[in-house]
Amino acid sequence: LGPCRLLTKEIFRTNLLESLSYVLTDCDGVLWADNAAIPGSPEALAGFRKLGKKVMYVTNNSTKSRIEYMEKCKKLHFQADMDEFFSTSYCTALYLKKLNFEGNIYLVGSHGLRQELTDAGFNCSPIGPDPVPDDWMNWAVNTMKLDPQVKAVVVGFDAHFNLTKMLRAASYLANKDCLFVGTNTDEQFPCGNKSIIIPGTGCIVQAVATAASRKPIIVGKPEPFMPDCIKYRWPDLDPAKTIMIGDRSNTDILMGKRAGMKTLLVGSGCDSLDAVRRNVAENRLDMVPDFFVPKLGDVVEMMPFT
Amino acid sequence: LGPCRLLTKEIFRTNLLESLSYVLTDCDGVLWADNAAIPGSPEALAGFRKLGKKVMYVTNNSTKSRIEYMEKCKKLHFQADMDEFFSTSYCTALYLKKLNFEGNIYLVGSHGLRQELTDAGFNCSPIGPDPVPDDWMNWAVNTMKLDPQVKAVVVGFDAHFNLTKMLRAASYLANKDCLFVGTNTDEQFPCGNKSIIIPGTGCIVQAVATAASRKPIIVGKPEPFMPDCIKYRWPDLDPAKTIMIGDRSNTDILMGKRAGMKTLLVGSGCDSLDAVRRNVAENRLDMVPDFFVPKLGDVVEMMPFT
Repeated sequence: LGPCRLLTKEIFRTNLLESLSYVLTDCDGVLWADNAAIPGSPEALAGFRKLGKKVMYVTNNSTKSRIEYMEKCKKLHFQADMDEFFSTSYCTALYLKKLNFEGNIYLVGSHGLRQELTDAGFNCSPIGPDPVPDDWMNWAVNTMKLDPQVKAVVVGFDAHFNLTKMLRAASYLANKDCLFVGTNTDEQFPCGNKSIIIPGTGCIVQAVATAASRKPIIVGKPEPFMPDCIKYRWPDLDPAKTIMIGDRSNTDILMGKRAGMKTLLVGSGCDSLDAVRRNVAENRLDMVPDFFVPKLGDVVEMMPFT
Repeated sequence: LGPCRLLTKEIFRTNLLESLSYVLTDCDGVLWADNAAIPGSPEALAGFRKLGKKVMYVTNNSTKSRIEYMEKCKKLHFQADMDEFFSTSYCTALYLKKLNFEGNIYLVGSHGLRQELTDAGFNCSPIGPDPVPDDWMNWAVNTMKLDPQVKAVVVGFDAHFNLTKMLRAASYLANKDCLFVGTNTDEQFPCGNKSIIIPGTGCIVQAVATAASRKPIIVGKPEPFMPDCIKYRWPDLDPAKTIMIGDRSNTDILMGKRAGMKTLLVGSGCDSLDAVRRNVAENRLDMVPDFFVPKLGDVVEMMPFT
């Protein structure tokens, strides 16, 4: 396991807990799978709070707005305040604001992303189905209407992603001045069933990037923009006193390591100990977590008050 | 332009024509754009035939069967015989036969590819729309039916590509023994309008590969399987006496160069002289054609009998 240690009660109490002020946690695969809480995760976060740690949610999932995340948290028994949420839906809006972006947005995405973008004052194309016409190539060349005011293509997760959306996105991106933003590159969503693979936003971003022959700017983990947002909102955050918890080596752990945080990989989502071993073997040490635990709930019984 | 020369009547007659026995030509962007012949291309191929050259069609487009290609050729006034067609639809069937593949195929593709696969005796999933259920993640985990006999996922161009198809393909590919074949990786289809980008099969293959975290075997250009098929059918073909004509540097020209053929890039499709200059500047000489001509029809007036 190289520099990664299996988290035990002793390690947790002697090497970790005391030094922590901030607990940043990924959501899908750590706190929940689809619409069900992963057993023990609500109690684990409640425990950290009881021990005086500041908890924050850091998710690459762009499908929900912060308000929708708060509703989901409450339903699944996680405490949640608005300023604890750093999702790619929200951070994409912050990114465009930071650029002083002007112009319309062609959006490949879901309701929550559109909500955050419009709440921030941006004009966005509608979401939802955009059917493929029968004689689609002829339609594309001769009939398709493109909005000349579109100056950015934003790509997040979109359950209605199809050829028509690829066509529109790539055609906007043929203009090299059109900004190309992807919320994140996660290849899969964790779903709690290893024989079913749920394609993630990365598949959609890759498809559009291939069509456009361009590389997008990525807002989400492991890129630095999300930790920058957190530090901007919480200037007291000291990376040395912060742990990043996640289920993916190439997003959660890599972001945490790059930001100088401690890192904890949980086995309840995408990556297992096999991924740790593979990254150790291939010397990708920036993706090897400091600690591993099968699931976040396992820390509950390590906590001093239990 | 580095080692690439603009084709002139003098070069055509003194350096090229005499040495040729075989003329291999790409289709989309060279012979036609969507359903219209590119002006002069029918006359150019007819001219090569009149000069005693053997003409063959070598296309990465997997949407049509050889029979459908013959119909299209006849409609657009290109002469065509069945054994002159090497499409990825046909060659994918040949590839699976060469492997003595047994098992069912999950197909992301179009009618022509399915036709060639079933004509070769393979069991294929149906093509066409496969709608995304409302509660799709729950459906995927709890309701989606996967065929346990599927031992290969074949991905070609599919106008109905969507999340459901990605889900099924990636879930089959979670089994490492399941074969993963992509017809080709072309990023775009040429459509004769530089401000409209038509996504190619490469976008679909990339999306599935990302979801599955696997690399496919690619049947089409620039990989060696298609020239191998041609040599198998036409053992007399001598690469030194063959020219490969195409509109893409990273498929047509690269395949021709790797196979030791002469190469001609035409500017009527995806790549222009800019692409040649870029490849020269970046020292990718295996993508730099021997000759360039704005469109294939321009060779007609270079031919000795005109």
